[in-house]
Amino acid sequence: MADDITTETADTVAAGQLRAFIERVERLEEDKKTISEDIKEVYAEMKANGFDTKAVRSIVRLRKKDQAERQEEEAMIDLYKAALGME
Amino acid sequence: MADDITTETADTVAAGQLRAFIERVERLEEDKKTISEDIKEVYAEMKANGFDTKAVRSIVRLRKKDQAERQEEEAMIDLYKAALGME
Amino acid sequence: MADDITTETADTVAAGQLRAFIERVERLEEDKKTISEDIKEVYAEMKANGFDTKAVRSIVRLRKKDQAERQEEEAMIDLYKAALGME
Amino acid sequence: MADDITTETADTVAAGQLRAFIERVERLEEDKKTISEDIKEVYAEMKANGFDTKAVRSIVRLRKKDQAERQEEEAMIDLYKAALGME
Repeated sequence: MADDITTETADTVAAGQLRAFIERVERLEEDKKTISEDIKEVYAEMKANGFDTKAVRSIVRLRKKDQAERQEEEAMIDLYKAALGME
Repeated sequence: MADDITTETADTVAAGQLRAFIERVERLEEDKKTISEDIKEVYAEMKANGFDTKAVRSIVRLRKKDQAERQEEEAMIDLYKAALGME
Repeated sequence: MADDITTETADTVAAGQLRAFIERVERLEEDKKTISEDIKEVYAEMKANGFDTKAVRSIVRLRKKDQAERQEEEAMIDLYKAALGME
Repeated sequence: MADDITTETADTVAAGQLRAFIERVERLEEDKKTISEDIKEVYAEMKANGFDTKAVRSIVRLRKKDQAERQEEEAMIDLYKAALGME
């Protein structure tokens, strides 16, 4: 009987701990979703101000790269474009 | 000449505005990345506490659904599993 | 001058080889796209025959797993659902 | 009793039909996987021949676009890069 109680308690604790972990994840996912919506709003604002948001997204992607590395990549792409006659 | 100055000023403003927009996006993306790392840490903590994180991820996904809708979906999957002889 | 010719020829060959590689990739990507469309059509046909395609997609995903592994995963999810009082 | 037989037959047909649909999807998914592996192999071959596969992947992506549209996009990105002082 003592065993039963111990097991029951352990299970109860685990359930509470599981619930606490899941709620932490859910709060963080909620925050992440809010930020994603904020980013969308910034792009909507840019668009309303006449910016080409597709090009801005490319710029944001390019700025994440190291400058030297980016220049090297762009030079290689230009080389291949020239080889293939792409203007 | 007055036109030149106006254009120049307009361009300068646009560049500053573009930079401001991009920096807002970058700060938000940074926040989002931090949250993604926090979520990973919560799962790592769960794992260290003996939870099956793959199953927990399924639970988190299931909890996003409306209960009635989820039960209906599960009943349909069980029906198809039975039809196919999947235990 | 011999060097120039050699280099030129080497470059020409490289361009031809590059183009050949790219065209092979493009043909394969075209095939892949056709298959993706075929899969969509099979699901459309299922739907027209009264099947719940969302549930079928789950079944297709489940069938990829080893049976013992799948049963273990499902048992763990059921355990967590019970602990959280999810019916 | 006639109803029972009818229902049973209908169910059997449905199970057979469900299985047939699922097997069609699985065969198509298998084909798709094979093609994905073929694409990886072409890139591995390119790499073994000294090509920069990251740049080739960019070229493949660019070739999917209409030339005029691509040139316009690139011009806009260059404009923004200049505005931000990115070389």
